[in-house]
Amino acid sequence: MKKWLLTVAVVATFGAQADEGMWQPHQLPAMADELKAKGLEIDVESISKLTEFPMNAVISLGGCTASFVSPKGLVVTNHHCAYGSIQYNSTPEKNLLKDGFLAKSYSEELQATPGSRIYVTEVVTDVTDKVKKGLEGKIGNDYYLGVEQKEKALVAECEAEDGYRCQVYSFHGGLEYYLVKQLEIRDVRLVYNPAASVGKYGGDIDNWMWPRHTGDFSFYRGYVSKSGKPADFNKDNVPYEPKSFLKVSAKGVSEGDFVMVAGYPGRTNRYRTANEVENTFEWAYPEGKMLRERFIEIIKETAPEGSDERIKYESLIAGLANYAKNFTSMIEFYGKSTMLDERKGRESELASWINKDSKRQQQYGQTMAELDKLIVEGQENQARDIILGYIRYTTMVPTARKLYRLANEQQLDDIAREPGYQERDLVRFKSGMERIDRRYAASVDKAVLLDMLSRYAVLPASERIPALDKAFGIGKTLDVKKLSKTLDAMYAETTLGDMETRLAWMNKSVADFKASNDPFIQLAVAMYDTDMAAEKKDKELAGKLMKIRPQYMDAIIAFNTEQGNPVYADANSSLRVTVGHVKGYSPEDGLKAVPFTRLEGILAKDTGADPFDAPSKQLELIKQKLYGDYYMKSIDSVPVNFLSTLDTTGGNSGSPTLNGRAELVGLLFDGVYESIIGDWGYDPVTNRSIQVDSRYMLWVMKYLDNADNLLAEMEIVN
Amino acid sequence: MKKWLLTVAVVATFGAQADEGMWQPHQLPAMADELKAKGLEIDVESISKLTEFPMNAVISLGGCTASFVSPKGLVVTNHHCAYGSIQYNSTPEKNLLKDGFLAKSYSEELQATPGSRIYVTEVVTDVTDKVKKGLEGKIGNDYYLGVEQKEKALVAECEAEDGYRCQVYSFHGGLEYYLVKQLEIRDVRLVYNPAASVGKYGGDIDNWMWPRHTGDFSFYRGYVSKSGKPADFNKDNVPYEPKSFLKVSAKGVSEGDFVMVAGYPGRTNRYRTANEVENTFEWAYPEGKMLRERFIEIIKETAPEGSDERIKYESLIAGLANYAKNFTSMIEFYGKSTMLDERKGRESELASWINKDSKRQQQYGQTMAELDKLIVEGQENQARDIILGYIRYTTMVPTARKLYRLANEQQLDDIAREPGYQERDLVRFKSGMERIDRRYAASVDKAVLLDMLSRYAVLPASERIPALDKAFGIGKTLDVKKLSKTLDAMYAETTLGDMETRLAWMNKSVADFKASNDPFIQLAVAMYDTDMAAEKKDKELAGKLMKIRPQYMDAIIAFNTEQGNPVYADANSSLRVTVGHVKGYSPEDGLKAVPFTRLEGILAKDTGADPFDAPSKQLELIKQKLYGDYYMKSIDSVPVNFLSTLDTTGGNSGSPTLNGRAELVGLLFDGVYESIIGDWGYDPVTNRSIQVDSRYMLWVMKYLDNADNLLAEMEIVN
Repeated sequence: MKKWLLTVAVVATFGAQADEGMWQPHQLPAMADELKAKGLEIDVESISKLTEFPMNAVISLGGCTASFVSPKGLVVTNHHCAYGSIQYNSTPEKNLLKDGFLAKSYSEELQATPGSRIYVTEVVTDVTDKVKKGLEGKIGNDYYLGVEQKEKALVAECEAEDGYRCQVYSFHGGLEYYLVKQLEIRDVRLVYNPAASVGKYGGDIDNWMWPRHTGDFSFYRGYVSKSGKPADFNKDNVPYEPKSFLKVSAKGVSEGDFVMVAGYPGRTNRYRTANEVENTFEWAYPEGKMLRERFIEIIKETAPEGSDERIKYESLIAGLANYAKNFTSMIEFYGKSTMLDERKGRESELASWINKDSKRQQQYGQTMAELDKLIVEGQENQARDIILGYIRYTTMVPTARKLYRLANEQQLDDIAREPGYQERDLVRFKSGMERIDRRYAASVDKAVLLDMLSRYAVLPASERIPALDKAFGIGKTLDVKKLSKTLDAMYAETTLGDMETRLAWMNKSVADFKASNDPFIQLAVAMYDTDMAAEKKDKELAGKLMKIRPQYMDAIIAFNTEQGNPVYADANSSLRVTVGHVKGYSPEDGLKAVPFTRLEGILAKDTGADPFDAPSKQLELIKQKLYGDYYMKSIDSVPVNFLSTLDTTGGNSGSPTLNGRAELVGLLFDGVYESIIGDWGYDPVTNRSIQVDSRYMLWVMKYLDNADNLLAEMEIVN
Repeated sequence: MKKWLLTVAVVATFGAQADEGMWQPHQLPAMADELKAKGLEIDVESISKLTEFPMNAVISLGGCTASFVSPKGLVVTNHHCAYGSIQYNSTPEKNLLKDGFLAKSYSEELQATPGSRIYVTEVVTDVTDKVKKGLEGKIGNDYYLGVEQKEKALVAECEAEDGYRCQVYSFHGGLEYYLVKQLEIRDVRLVYNPAASVGKYGGDIDNWMWPRHTGDFSFYRGYVSKSGKPADFNKDNVPYEPKSFLKVSAKGVSEGDFVMVAGYPGRTNRYRTANEVENTFEWAYPEGKMLRERFIEIIKETAPEGSDERIKYESLIAGLANYAKNFTSMIEFYGKSTMLDERKGRESELASWINKDSKRQQQYGQTMAELDKLIVEGQENQARDIILGYIRYTTMVPTARKLYRLANEQQLDDIAREPGYQERDLVRFKSGMERIDRRYAASVDKAVLLDMLSRYAVLPASERIPALDKAFGIGKTLDVKKLSKTLDAMYAETTLGDMETRLAWMNKSVADFKASNDPFIQLAVAMYDTDMAAEKKDKELAGKLMKIRPQYMDAIIAFNTEQGNPVYADANSSLRVTVGHVKGYSPEDGLKAVPFTRLEGILAKDTGADPFDAPSKQLELIKQKLYGDYYMKSIDSVPVNFLSTLDTTGGNSGSPTLNGRAELVGLLFDGVYESIIGDWGYDPVTNRSIQVDSRYMLWVMKYLDNADNLLAEMEIVN
């Protein structure tokens, strides 16, 4: 199909044509002319420097992006990024999710959900040489652990300065390493969120869809100690004063306008091999979709609508459904594409380029074959591993394992511990253990575990894990009744459902675990050696890949550099800049998605029933055509959401979408259905990001929610 | 909602603003300036004269429209209008539906399905005075029968000339009457049809939908005797030479271009009262939808897929489903509209206009109240009548009734008989009796009848019909088992399932029927007096409405005339002209339906499975971008279907869509989903007709089906 041909035309050269590319800020100056031609008005140097405006106004919430929009630490992000905090502060009597929330003064602001953080990236350092130094001769597990040790040392050194969080990011599969140092603001407060019937309008039905009418924005504020340092929540803390903040545009953008996003995209797979593409789309996604759908079914069967158990699982259902839909889209568009053939074409193009030159042959001649061999090795037990992977979505088994792992890791020096079990991780670890109370029901956990184990139990003997079979009493053939009884007994006996008990286990010794009668603790102990052996095997493979994949990427980069094309790395949750334009697309022949939706679209969609139940005041304002200051002439209304060609993915949620002067013109919150597969290849024809228009945000704030205090606090420009 | 406000703005004045209006040709000269401004290039007088080009090239097939496209009587219409003939000529060995058909010479052309006709309208005469003369004092049944007698006399006089079919059409509910005289060509032959995978591409899934990619065209040819007169099929007949024919445009139209359609729209309800609107949308459509869906369910349960019985019912299922979908759309868009309020507003506007003037008060003061009283009267037994109405979709009960009615009518002079039972109707009557063999299975007929009677049997006693209860042995309460047994016995005993038997009954006397042991004949005899009494009651009401509704329309016309606005009559299957433009629309906020679809859309839609299974040769041609002579630069492809604002409805199918020079640029074949409700009110914002583009038709003929002989026969212009 045409669209994939186009994709490949772009991907094959990895050029900066069209609007593809998630660029590391330091790459931007080399693209200055192109960016200027596209519409960037401010100096390109400024967006390459993290400590200058506007980049220092763009922050991470860990999983989401956000930005400062006032000198007093006011932060804007997506409603769905603040969802946990809104939910956390809601009670049946005072339901902030349903009714919305507005603090009229600092004192009314509410503590965000425990563990909430604002990360301000301050320094990014290339540490490739430091990481790789001395590891030249190592391979496999040794190389993996060697890199991990280096990373931990760099992080420890970096975090020696109080109030900072540091992390080493690997780029191009391990070709380059960057150390990122972020100020970690720990006192985060909820300032304002519109009602869910605005902020989540359209709900899961409209998720990944266009046309869209979602007011997906909310406001936080960062607080620090009186001396200006990050601090735990304290009523004496004061608003953080960022080095800069974004101005908010009341004028917004028009069709064709330049836009850019700075944010923290999570993960893309633009450089995966044909083998990986084939296995993922033809096996992993279909299998994952099936398991997710089954998982949801079981939850719904076990925890009927309206039950207490169901409430606890709504969030997991939403997450499972989200990616079931994601996989469905991936499979659908893969089926329509010639992605696999084109990926193969790209590889053979690269191979001929390598073979044309003896030096290249020497350098990369074996790379692709070796890479593919390792990839195939990693797929060997995937039918089993995917099931074990989904068991990780249950609660009791992974909880017991994590706790026992912690006991084991705590025997080591902090620097030697597995990441996730170091001192720096324990606050998060503890929040995780606490959160279980709100998300766990034994009946559901057991039902899902039974289903997954039943799938495991019918795998060929070669795939089975003796320790696991023994722990659950699984014999040569599956006896579901017996297995069910075993699980019933385990859930009846375990005390890990109790929060205090779980927290207590965080401080116990390996011996305590070994002496425990708790069936899930016993399981964790029984499985430990097997688990560790499996992990070691995984790391062995990972270590090998960490040496081969960079070679492959090195070849791709050399190939492109020769043609004068810069290469961006796959997303890895680090700060990136993408540039694009406000633009519609054609979802199918004969239809065009226009770039803006209008207030009137809410009236047309509204059914009065969730998720299409806008506040009646809002419907009334729209009927009255009260457009106020945010009227857009070309659409004869206030724009609600808009489409752009920006190259984004999960993690970019909440990113400020900026115009050429770096003014905030929107908040990125989603991509269209056709661009879900974009994680594997950007298609300029159909790849579109969806933004809340700043004019809609301001309209809701001014006319619907009367957030005059915040409007006054922000700097709004025309 | 906005759209209905707009509609009403137009409807309230009945003006010719926008592109609303199904005009009688004689109305057009008065609109000459407006038509010219819109883009009509030929003399407006010519389209007002039925015997001149282009109007004399536009013909009726009875239910569909068509046009002459060669001097040798070649006729183009929709594939779905020729469907019966294609099916009739198909055998398992030679499946014309599946494979398509092309006669390379006259001798290869195939007889169309029995009863096929081409009607060429030659004279339309205003006979209002003739019809109403002498009926001034009559009301109710007397008026109804009086009008009917006049109509029959006019028709008989008109049909005295051999080879003609005549009909009196009532306009504005009986305000005006026109006698239409049509040449009736009885030897109709199938010349060419593309494969169903082109001509019915998208099938029922795409029915009423946009985007669309259907090649909905086929060709007939009319034959007459050597002396040029209509004649029955005979191999010595020669192609009919029409007075004129349409040139076919290879250049087609562009967005915004003027287009017009001449055709035979079936029925609209633009002038129905608020009461009728409310009852129809809030009762009749929901109830009809439910009954149709139940009807389909029963057929599917009783005649499983793949069974012989099922094949016989596919066409009925399609018809039932078609209108179930139609009703669904009507209900949906009514729910979103303020149609009822606006209709009420229109009535009160009319009422105040009437009340402003004492002469008007005298003339129309009571009209609306009287009209509404009669409308309510007609709704009295609707819960029962709708069930009895659906029993008419079964086979045995209505067949027996029709045969017995014929015996009774045949006792009368021809001119005195009920329309449908006169000598002129008997060929059609006989074809109907013959066709039953292909469309009847006792098992299905019984199951549906049982369901409908069971619904009838639980109605309040006041709604029940003693003769019907007695005939089926229905007691005070419903005993389904007993009723089922009764029906089993009836279907086991009846011989009406046999074609020869049915045809034999066409010539039997009333006494023969009374003496018959056939249970359905007995039923018809037993019900006859009741049936006649009910019919008389209906005619009494109809007769009253035929006096009041014209008064209401007269008031509406006077009201509009005062404002200088012409008024078109509701569609009544008579020849009308509508004008409009090539134009997309917005099916919902944030989406735009663009006016043209492209060949590439077929590639994108194609799944290889019916109804998205284009011929592989076609897919190959598209992949090769073989656009040939039919390339349209603005869409970089060959246009497949296009949208226009033309005001059309069922019956317009097959209509030639003409450009300003009266060249054929498309064939009208459908309307979009949002415009189904257009039968009740034209909305310029969403009312869109769908056409096959002439360029796609020519492309298929030239490159896919190699219909070079027909391309040579037609006059193709650029």
